[in-house]
This record gives sequence, C-alpha cells and structure tokens, in this order.
Amino acid sequence: MSINRLTQQIQFIIEIDRLKLVLRQTSLTDNSRRENSAEHSWHIAMMALTLAEYAPEGVDISHAIKMLLIHDLVEIDAGDTFCYDVQGNQNKAEKEAQAALRLFELLPADQARELRSLWDEFEAGETPTAKFAAALDRIQPLLHNQQNGGGTWRIHSIRRDQVMKRVAPVETGAPQLWPFVLQLIDECVVAGYIKEAAIKI
Amino acid sequence: MSINRLTQQIQFIIEIDRLKLVLRQTSLTDNSRRENSAEHSWHIAMMALTLAEYAPEGVDISHAIKMLLIHDLVEIDAGDTFCYDVQGNQNKAEKEAQAALRLFELLPADQARELRSLWDEFEAGETPTAKFAAALDRIQPLLHNQQNGGGTWRIHSIRRDQVMKRVAPVETGAPQLWPFVLQLIDECVVAGYIKEAAIKI
Repeated sequence: MSINRLTQQIQFIIEIDRLKLVLRQTSLTDNSRRENSAEHSWHIAMMALTLAEYAPEGVDISHAIKMLLIHDLVEIDAGDTFCYDVQGNQNKAEKEAQAALRLFELLPADQARELRSLWDEFEAGETPTAKFAAALDRIQPLLHNQQNGGGTWRIHSIRRDQVMKRVAPVETGAPQLWPFVLQLIDECVVAGYIKEAAIKI
Repeated sequence: MSINRLTQQIQFIIEIDRLKLVLRQTSLTDNSRRENSAEHSWHIAMMALTLAEYAPEGVDISHAIKMLLIHDLVEIDAGDTFCYDVQGNQNKAEKEAQAALRLFELLPADQARELRSLWDEFEAGETPTAKFAAALDRIQPLLHNQQNGGGTWRIHSIRRDQVMKRVAPVETGAPQLWPFVLQLIDECVVAGYIKEAAIKI
C-alpha cells in the first residue's frame, strides 16, 4: 500500500463532505428545511435499490447506485442549479466540467479516471444504466413536492408543460414507472400544486 | 406490475426521507452543524467506493455499499445512540429491532426480507463484507473529529482507550487501513483532541 495513495483518497473523502453543505431548491417531505445534495444522493441510491425490479433490460443496479452516489459531486464547486432556471443552466455544463476536473483529480490517477468515467456516463445519458439513474433523479423531487404541499412548483408557479419537459427522461429511462409519474402529476395539478398549462385560443 | 406493490415501495421511499432528520453526535468537517444519518450513510457508501482496494478477500463492494446505505434506517424510529453513551446503548438493540420490524415491513414481503437480511448481516458483523462495512462506519467519525478540532471527543473528554475500543473492528474488518487509523489516533492525542488514557499507579 502506498501511503501517498491512501493520503490522496482520504483527502478526497474529507473534501466531499462539503456536498452536505450544498442546498437544493427542493425541501424535505415534511417541509422543515431544504434538502442538501449529499442526503439527496443517498435517497436516490436507495430508490435504485428499492425500484430495481422496474429497471429496463441492460441496467446494472450496482453500477446505477455508484453513479447516483457521485452524480452531484461537482456541485461542491458548481453549486446546485435550479432545473427551471433557464439562465443559470446556460453555463452549468462548463462550471460542472471545471469542478469535475478539480475534484476527481484529488484521487490517484487511475481512480480519478474510474470515477470520472462514471460521472461522464451519467452526464452523457446514453447507456440504459445512466438513463435509469437519470429517471430516478427526476422522480425524487416529484415525491418531495407532492408530500410538502407543492414545494418548488408553487413557489415558482411552475406549469404542467414545464414539469412534463423535466420528467420526460423517465419515459425512456424507466418506462415501467412512467404511468405512475403521469398519475402523480395529474394529482398534483388537481391539488393546485402544479399550474395547468395555459390554453392557447 | 402490481400497482399495490409499487405503492408500497413509494411509501417506503417517502418514509425513509425522515432519516435526514436524525442528527448524529458528530459534526461536519467544517464544524458548521451536526451531521444527519442520511448524509452520513451517503458518505460511508462513498468511502466504500473510494477505499475498495483495501477490502480483504471475500468482500463484495457493491454489497457493502447497499449495506451501508440501509445500515442506519432503523434510527428513523430508534434515534441515533451516541457510541460512548453506556446507558443509551443498553436497550439500543431492542429499539432498533422494533424499528426494523416496522420499517422494512412497509415493503412487499419478498423485498422486506431482502433488505432486512442486508441489515441483519451488517448487525451480525460476521461476513467479510459486513466487517469491512462496519470498519468504514468507525473510521468516518474519526476523520470528522480530526477535521473539526476534536469534535465529540473534546466535548465528552473521551480517552484514547475508549476510542481504541470503538475502532477495534477496523483491525479485523479492514486490516490494511489499521496502521492509518492508529496513526490518526496518535496525532489526535498529540493535538489534545483525545485524552491520553489515565496512568494507573
């Protein structure tokens, strides 16, 4: 064992503690406070474990869990960008790429490549596993907003068409969960949590 | 897909959000606030991913990650018991067994058994994977206390012999990490974070 190698790994483990300080827009289901990105990552990893049976063919659940554990690490530097913030999302990719460069390179080179490739796979969203992981990442805030009385949807007067665009990856990434998502959105529109899309005359 | 089955699984996913409200004694590395059990679970799952190469033969890292994700779920009902609280630890096992009964049974029966067996394996601490997972669970608070100026050790005037007893599972569960742990404890004694054990005359 190289002491230097372990030192780098421990430094990485200490550094990522900062993900617990990154606040998301979403609040906890009891609405007591905003959720942070570390506990969010835990929650969706648990979702992958619990909802594994709905994963399409070709999805590797253990690989999805690893991907979900690291998918938000870049927010340590780049912060969390609210999904409905059009301007904030313009330079999101660039900020996150910079963050990935710094964070993964705290690790020994071979491991930096390994974790970086997990993140790249999630970001590219092309493999069945990345698509399933992304679908869970879209479903979790729906559950939170439904539970806490509308959450970010009400605060920002979000419309059904915006939510539909946001959750679209579920239809291909986790098709077996798509009917559940559509029903949940319908219920949240009826409850007044999501605004019905404006009717064009 | 049985709608009822998915409904049970979604209820479980919503219920476990409460783990984010369970505060541990340990503070974050920047000492800004106490850590909660959900983000702690994420952090040690990340440790398993990062330190996988130090796992003894027979350890299944993906299995260890799943175990670490669920290992503290019972705290939703049972709360977090401070490791140096002798009295609080007396009925800990009973409280946690009750909690496991309620929480896992929110799931469909087959899945309740599957997750329950993961937790039972962790608690029994007999397999190489459970021992490695437990070792990581012991190492993480050391890193936090070292980073935040002594943390719970200083608050409760914890002695070296108490810490040594607490981290003992690392020696067998992750022997390759044991020299690092011993060195870290030495450094924290020198820094005054951990009290030197009382000398018997």
